[in-house]
Amino acid sequence: MTATARAALRREVLEANLRIPATGLATLTWGNVSGVDREAGVFVIKPSGVPYERLTEDDLVVVALDDGRVVEGTLRPSTDTETHRCLYRAFPAIGGVTHTHSTHAVAFAQARRAIPVLGTTHADTFDGPVPVTDVLTPEQCARDYEFHTGQVVVDLLDGDEARAEAVPGALVAHHGPFTWGATATASLEHAVVLEAVAEMALHTLALGRVEPPQHLLDRHYTRKHGPGAYYGNPAPDAA
Amino acid sequence: MTATARAALRREVLEANLRIPATGLATLTWGNVSGVDREAGVFVIKPSGVPYERLTEDDLVVVALDDGRVVEGTLRPSTDTETHRCLYRAFPAIGGVTHTHSTHAVAFAQARRAIPVLGTTHADTFDGPVPVTDVLTPEQCARDYEFHTGQVVVDLLDGDEARAEAVPGALVAHHGPFTWGATATASLEHAVVLEAVAEMALHTLALGRVEPPQHLLDRHYTRKHGPGAYYGNPAPDAA
Amino acid sequence: MTATARAALRREVLEANLRIPATGLATLTWGNVSGVDREAGVFVIKPSGVPYERLTEDDLVVVALDDGRVVEGTLRPSTDTETHRCLYRAFPAIGGVTHTHSTHAVAFAQARRAIPVLGTTHADTFDGPVPVTDVLTPEQCARDYEFHTGQVVVDLLDGDEARAEAVPGALVAHHGPFTWGATATASLEHAVVLEAVAEMALHTLALGRVEPPQHLLDRHYTRKHGPGAYYGNPAPDAA
Amino acid sequence: MTATARAALRREVLEANLRIPATGLATLTWGNVSGVDREAGVFVIKPSGVPYERLTEDDLVVVALDDGRVVEGTLRPSTDTETHRCLYRAFPAIGGVTHTHSTHAVAFAQARRAIPVLGTTHADTFDGPVPVTDVLTPEQCARDYEFHTGQVVVDLLDGDEARAEAVPGALVAHHGPFTWGATATASLEHAVVLEAVAEMALHTLALGRVEPPQHLLDRHYTRKHGPGAYYGNPAPDAA
Repeated sequence: MTATARAALRREVLEANLRIPATGLATLTWGNVSGVDREAGVFVIKPSGVPYERLTEDDLVVVALDDGRVVEGTLRPSTDTETHRCLYRAFPAIGGVTHTHSTHAVAFAQARRAIPVLGTTHADTFDGPVPVTDVLTPEQCARDYEFHTGQVVVDLLDGDEARAEAVPGALVAHHGPFTWGATATASLEHAVVLEAVAEMALHTLALGRVEPPQHLLDRHYTRKHGPGAYYGNPAPDAA
Repeated sequence: MTATARAALRREVLEANLRIPATGLATLTWGNVSGVDREAGVFVIKPSGVPYERLTEDDLVVVALDDGRVVEGTLRPSTDTETHRCLYRAFPAIGGVTHTHSTHAVAFAQARRAIPVLGTTHADTFDGPVPVTDVLTPEQCARDYEFHTGQVVVDLLDGDEARAEAVPGALVAHHGPFTWGATATASLEHAVVLEAVAEMALHTLALGRVEPPQHLLDRHYTRKHGPGAYYGNPAPDAA
Repeated sequence: MTATARAALRREVLEANLRIPATGLATLTWGNVSGVDREAGVFVIKPSGVPYERLTEDDLVVVALDDGRVVEGTLRPSTDTETHRCLYRAFPAIGGVTHTHSTHAVAFAQARRAIPVLGTTHADTFDGPVPVTDVLTPEQCARDYEFHTGQVVVDLLDGDEARAEAVPGALVAHHGPFTWGATATASLEHAVVLEAVAEMALHTLALGRVEPPQHLLDRHYTRKHGPGAYYGNPAPDAA
Repeated sequence: MTATARAALRREVLEANLRIPATGLATLTWGNVSGVDREAGVFVIKPSGVPYERLTEDDLVVVALDDGRVVEGTLRPSTDTETHRCLYRAFPAIGGVTHTHSTHAVAFAQARRAIPVLGTTHADTFDGPVPVTDVLTPEQCARDYEFHTGQVVVDLLDGDEARAEAVPGALVAHHGPFTWGATATASLEHAVVLEAVAEMALHTLALGRVEPPQHLLDRHYTRKHGPGAYYGNPAPDAA
């Protein structure tokens, strides 16, 4: 990655982090987004416990993918850094990771229930239910807790990158959502969608659950993903 | 429609689209509003996947009513364009169409339940429950999916324009609300009302459903609609 | 009332109306606040159907208490004007009236359930449940509907001014809340409290209803009302 | 405390009070934050009934810890002042107290249910359920009511400072939450967390309650508290 590309990555990671409070996905200093530079073997992440209103590009921390050491930056990285690192290592195609404590997604995580597919809002982004992990064992909590938090997500998907691409998010039991994507921005947008569909699902379940037909869900997912996708326009700067 | 009227239509369609995020009816790039120029046989609609904060009048796309081809504009129109076109063709009196993924309306759509009339907030705008369509068949999903999404709405109303005027909105099963009106602005305002009454209905059902008397509902609907209407004042620019 | 006092009343009524959208009590043009000039036998009220963002002092309409004719103003007054007039006539001590379609208060009105007293937030303002009226009869709906909407509120309280002071609000069945107070501002603030306690009550009932002791409720009500009240400080302009 | 430190305390108390409406924890003039100067034996608190938008540092009131008399300021202090004073006297280590009427925390208080620990969002801040007090007796309501409101909180914790530190908040039955912390800011942030976990808990209970494992909760609490804590970075002005 060129110096210009790295500077753009830092800017993107900062902006994605600032969208956490702007979209109401977390309060105080909760939540964090990272983006990866695969070529350099590092990722850029939010520092721990810094209020969003004070967060600047200089506060971001650059961490090595191989061993988690801090490569650039004077602040301590997010406590969730090792979870991000675990996900990056298990899924080589992902470019960004987001973690929030968004209200309705956390409710499903706390109830240890997957978010079921109830309509097209869900199917536009997630090709199946958003699953919930097993509870971490005492051993997983005792040592390398944050790395193991990523590991239970990887185990949930059997380390299968195709599944990680089809459903770019999961709920860690009694904790909350982690989402990922091709970029930091994409991972943040998946977190936004996940919270929206969690809230819709909660209200739908209160009204009574009805299964949608699979052919409708497939149609929506393939409108936006894969070779036949026809949703969207290129961003102006992508031209 | 004169060039001046067409310019005003574009401005109105832009403003109505910008009210989608401002009123919380949808997140990211979800939702779209269009307005029609019947004389010219075209309608103006939001492009696909462009963030609201970047949306300008020049991004809007003009589409032919007869065959759906793009007449003006360099961007791809909303993926829901064919649904709008279907509704315009079936109901010649409508001038605008809005589609959102507003939370509580989607919950009813996902539960495949009509929004019942529980009070005057509903009856002020909708002369009956907001109905929910049948599920699209595999055939309807396989080909011309978006046009068929409009068709299930038209079928739900038996193509009856009087019913479309009396209840200017419907829920597409497992998808979400579509609303319409005499103008783009009116269709957007019907989407705002639909979401408000959906939220009120959800809470009311939690407290226990009680049927309102029909004479009260009729009174409210006729306060605002038909020859005896006495709600509102003319807009300053309508003088 | 002097010309200065009347000008202050207009300003207060405008500001109270603008607090309806600011506090989320209603959307679009729903909701209205009025304030009375008892000496002149008139009240000042919002015009019908004018968006809040365009509303100015000049748009306000002055209406006679005795027969409801428009005394000042070029616009048509709120369709709810006759309801306000009915309340002013029945309760000579009140100085302001507010009507909204706030979400949770409407839910109770639609379920025809009074808002029970479940804690001190409620008891600080309302010395008892917020009651719900009878359903209007076909005759009451057929003629002078809006005046009768006020009449069912007056009937609910047996026209008793002491009860109207102790519980300054009521829910009209299948419609929504009306609140009143010594001033237009006070009536608006009672609408804010009513919506807050309605939302709290809805969530409390979901968790399980427990009756609070009457001695706690009495303590809170008398902290703020009556000869022994000790809440608050005089407003700077009241000195 | 030096004059400079006292000035900083006033500024902190003002800012913490202004975060009550900014974070949606209370409406109108509800809610109050105080901070203590142990050396001088006084605390700084919000005046009673002053709207947040008009609140200035000069409006704050300084109150003596020993007998509750006003030491500085021309306004009447918050009606809840004696509750703050009771908590400061019982728990010498706390530096700030916050009281709000936040919606979901009040719902639990009104239902007289403790907020159960359902996940890590809760465990990050509260090392156990947020408990609910006994109902105040008629005698406690009749005399020194506000001091007794603090006393039922102290009694709930058996006056045990370690428990007050481990779970820095409680619900007063049929009233609402009080939180505390090392500083005024910390007490306010605990109120923010308490409301967030109350809302999450309400939604979780609707989906079905599942107990989290204690080893996970312990891990989260000790990430942020005690000698092994590794969350956060020093604030710039703490250097």
